[in-house]
Amino acid sequence: MEILLKYSTALKTQLQKAVPQGGPHQLYDPINYILALGGKRIRPALTLMVCDFFETDFNKAMNAALAVELFHNFSLIHDDIMDNAPLRRGKRTVHEKWDVNTAILSGDAMLILAYRFFENYEPKMFRELAKLFSETALQVCEGQQHDMDFETRDDVSLVEYIKMIDHKTAVLLGAAMKMGAIVAEASQSDQDKIYQFGRNLGIAFQLQDDYLDVFGNPETFGKQVGGDIISNKKTFLYLMAVGEGTSTQADELEHLFSINPKDPTDKIATVKEIFLTSGAAQATQREIEKFSHLADSFLNDIEISEEKKSMLREFGKDLMERVV
Amino acid sequence: MEILLKYSTALKTQLQKAVPQGGPHQLYDPINYILALGGKRIRPALTLMVCDFFETDFNKAMNAALAVELFHNFSLIHDDIMDNAPLRRGKRTVHEKWDVNTAILSGDAMLILAYRFFENYEPKMFRELAKLFSETALQVCEGQQHDMDFETRDDVSLVEYIKMIDHKTAVLLGAAMKMGAIVAEASQSDQDKIYQFGRNLGIAFQLQDDYLDVFGNPETFGKQVGGDIISNKKTFLYLMAVGEGTSTQADELEHLFSINPKDPTDKIATVKEIFLTSGAAQATQREIEKFSHLADSFLNDIEISEEKKSMLREFGKDLMERVV
Repeated sequence: MEILLKYSTALKTQLQKAVPQGGPHQLYDPINYILALGGKRIRPALTLMVCDFFETDFNKAMNAALAVELFHNFSLIHDDIMDNAPLRRGKRTVHEKWDVNTAILSGDAMLILAYRFFENYEPKMFRELAKLFSETALQVCEGQQHDMDFETRDDVSLVEYIKMIDHKTAVLLGAAMKMGAIVAEASQSDQDKIYQFGRNLGIAFQLQDDYLDVFGNPETFGKQVGGDIISNKKTFLYLMAVGEGTSTQADELEHLFSINPKDPTDKIATVKEIFLTSGAAQATQREIEKFSHLADSFLNDIEISEEKKSMLREFGKDLMERVV
Repeated sequence: MEILLKYSTALKTQLQKAVPQGGPHQLYDPINYILALGGKRIRPALTLMVCDFFETDFNKAMNAALAVELFHNFSLIHDDIMDNAPLRRGKRTVHEKWDVNTAILSGDAMLILAYRFFENYEPKMFRELAKLFSETALQVCEGQQHDMDFETRDDVSLVEYIKMIDHKTAVLLGAAMKMGAIVAEASQSDQDKIYQFGRNLGIAFQLQDDYLDVFGNPETFGKQVGGDIISNKKTFLYLMAVGEGTSTQADELEHLFSINPKDPTDKIATVKEIFLTSGAAQATQREIEKFSHLADSFLNDIEISEEKKSMLREFGKDLMERVV
């Protein structure tokens, strides 16, 4: 994505020097491995971009951006163990390439390394950044726990679901942006607004992810369309359809989400049909719009130039349309 | 232990309020569980005691002490997974009572919670404490990695072994004490000396642990005497005996540490004999004394009253004799 390119390029160079040299290889090799897998590095690029937009040299936010990227990758290493995932970005996950013990310990080291990047800031800024970081990191853990809990519960409410994706995904997007504003010494009010912009955009993005998993274009979605249905994942669409559909539709959905047919084609088609006729698809679209608008309303109030705002708006649009 | 009692009692009360209320149970229950298992809580009590000894209300060091205790227990949860340990302090380990995923995620949350306790200090002190904490935590990870690496290596040097126990065990003892000095705003020189006192005492303690595992009194040692020999653990005694003994002794030891007899009585007796005749037992005793004296020499130079010094000396003696 054009807007983020200059930031993610600057970041890439720094990332290669981010990991200590000379320690035990078995501890640090997996860290270098997952960092080199790439990904779009949207979160740390946002830290740099927001700092830039508040009229401050974005290199000042580099250490905060590195902390964000290390934290994100720490959570991927540990989540991949928990999800028993064989692949990450098309390559073997750390616990597959090495083993579970290595993945646990390297992940731990990575979380500690993330904190260390804040040490380069003056005490007051250090505390502000580390506080936001810890608060966010704990929410991410809580979100991951709720996500795992939901797998075995059949009474998850829509409110609980939104809270789960907020914690698991959205708060880190908000915090990444807010860190850029903290480094740029933006006003407290602007710091809070850019946080809410990122956070609400993050919720909209995750709901859109649920939606596109069912109704997306296989050529642009980037993941297998129907994947959530195949793995019986109770997304927002499912919860909405069970809640808003007829009792016959709810019963059928509950049945379909308890089976694992060899050929899932019919299952996917039926679920899709129920998501449409129950009104769940439309209701999810409205929910996405609600959070997108909420994000925009925070953005509009921030004291930066109209040009910068429209760039952030464009970023949000690209994120939702998966062209980032 | 008399000296630590008032500190560990004060700590216990605070520890019960240390974990967030209202989050997901599956995340926080294991944290409360392991904290309630008790243990002697030597490390955080030392943080409080050192603060007290530098003429400062020890309650000011409570948050640092809680961070130390949470970190230590985080490392126990993750180490127990890696060691596949069924029991901890006579009770089921977290990954046994719940499962591995829960143990990973609760451990992560506990590490983050540890950092949060520093937030109660002013920015300058916050940064000092968090820096020391991160540096130490990373060393503990490196020590754990070296310990695991050593299991499959047969060329571990004595220097590498000392470095491993230093990182895995000793630095946290030093850092726990130094945090008390930081909170008490002791001079940089005294902060460094109390750190070196704790660290060298920690190395002496761990070497003594290796020694007592073979030559200790079963009634006072607290663990199974001969346990390291049964599990073929290459401790300082083993490395010393292989290096300093005759080639026949070295060959015999290497053989004995590759077998797992059903009845280990003869194996233990033979190994013990070689540890004695090769001079490894005596050499280990000398090494323990060396680090004990080094610890003392740092203690002697600290600017606190002679009475406080002799209390710290007494603590060191009790620690080495396992009456703590």
